[in-house]
Amino acid sequence: MKILQVFSLISTLLATSEVPDLNIPNQIHLHSQDLHISNQIHSLRPLSGSCSHDIPGLSCSSWRLAVETNNIIGWTTVPEECENYVGNYMLGQHYRNDSKVVADVALAHAKSMNLTGDGKDIWVFDVDETTLSNVPYYASNGFGTTPYNSTLFNEWVKEGKAPALPESLKLYKNLLSLGIKVVFLTGRREHTRNSTATNLKEAGYHTWEKLILKNSTYYSEVEYKSNERKQLEENGYRIIGNMGDQWSDLLGTNAGIRTFKLPDPMYYVS
Amino acid sequence: MKILQVFSLISTLLATSEVPDLNIPNQIHLHSQDLHISNQIHSLRPLSGSCSHDIPGLSCSSWRLAVETNNIIGWTTVPEECENYVGNYMLGQHYRNDSKVVADVALAHAKSMNLTGDGKDIWVFDVDETTLSNVPYYASNGFGTTPYNSTLFNEWVKEGKAPALPESLKLYKNLLSLGIKVVFLTGRREHTRNSTATNLKEAGYHTWEKLILKNSTYYSEVEYKSNERKQLEENGYRIIGNMGDQWSDLLGTNAGIRTFKLPDPMYYVS
Repeated sequence: MKILQVFSLISTLLATSEVPDLNIPNQIHLHSQDLHISNQIHSLRPLSGSCSHDIPGLSCSSWRLAVETNNIIGWTTVPEECENYVGNYMLGQHYRNDSKVVADVALAHAKSMNLTGDGKDIWVFDVDETTLSNVPYYASNGFGTTPYNSTLFNEWVKEGKAPALPESLKLYKNLLSLGIKVVFLTGRREHTRNSTATNLKEAGYHTWEKLILKNSTYYSEVEYKSNERKQLEENGYRIIGNMGDQWSDLLGTNAGIRTFKLPDPMYYVS
Repeated sequence: MKILQVFSLISTLLATSEVPDLNIPNQIHLHSQDLHISNQIHSLRPLSGSCSHDIPGLSCSSWRLAVETNNIIGWTTVPEECENYVGNYMLGQHYRNDSKVVADVALAHAKSMNLTGDGKDIWVFDVDETTLSNVPYYASNGFGTTPYNSTLFNEWVKEGKAPALPESLKLYKNLLSLGIKVVFLTGRREHTRNSTATNLKEAGYHTWEKLILKNSTYYSEVEYKSNERKQLEENGYRIIGNMGDQWSDLLGTNAGIRTFKLPDPMYYVS
């Protein structure tokens, strides 16, 4: 991970952003420890654009909502004019707050369930932007404004240095303590199994029932994940909850008793 | 419609809101003509809370995103501490921008379709908070913070004075010009047919293929709407698009080629 590049880009972001001083209390700071980025970056504040009304033309806030609600689909890159907006969103408190609410609702759901204790209650987690965060990678790659580069991204994956999304890690620990087993179901390919497993463990996900990676070419992520969930249910597992950052993690068949959509305005997986 | 009550409440909102002067350009004003509320209210600005980070404890912005993404379900009232937030959201530019993006995406989808011209291409619209706006009603009823009151709401419906949601009306006109017929599918009951039909016409929706109202007790809105859409398809109609403000408008069977979720942080219909 080229940390210097991140610093450079964030400096550029800060320098070029048209930020009127909103006189907002300094509650917004980078959770540097959580995301393994130096805590020298502590002055990052939301652009006025993060409130949606100061960007002429496209409202990046409305674009983001339309993405999160699955209204805008099949997109390949974040609109260029929203790079600062998305960067500020991802690095600031907003993304974390949004993730926390989802994790809290998910835990409340899990606690409300009548669990059997037979070891067949499972929780399905996606990996990227769900349990692990690729924010350090995307911070040095335009926050999704440049097309997906599989070579670069695979290099990053091989490093195995993605931090945990803290809210998901907390949920994971709570689920385990409730007696729910965890299945990771990811679009990452089989050849990344070692680095993914190592990364998960180092990030704090020490145990799991299964780590399912993609080993053949499916028509779509929905088909792949539906098929894998079907097999889980055929093997007697009950999917108490299913959590992902993409709608393709949650749509299709055998979706689970409830699904939970984490925010991700950086990329779209169909 | 008791306009004075609305004024009174909005004055209260403005008086009680803890609004630091954000020095935001005065781009936020009530679209008074669109919503049939006097244009004397022009100084309404977003609370700092509308950016999510100035509300201690609950983040109303994160709560709203979780509602819009169907993570928070089965809720009966807006959290009390979010009344000002939701009020400002609904009356300001934010709600309108969010709606506009959805309508724009929906129109682009409709234009991309190979339409047959045989009169069987239809668009399914929900009514409340989709084609008609009940913002005047909710503005005098706590913006969803008080429990649903069917007596009061039915009185409002009988008045037939709900304005059009402007973005949906524009979409409606564009769809008609593409040769797509419109079906209104609403949870409103059969006994409101006259006032609903009159209201739709007066708001600018002059023609439709069908206006379907609820005439029996279904287990849920999803079941009711799925069943009605199934009947439409069995009658040879093709549902080019399906638009609503509730996930129960869009989930279930026979959902249409694509679904579009309009924002609505004021209430939840299961």
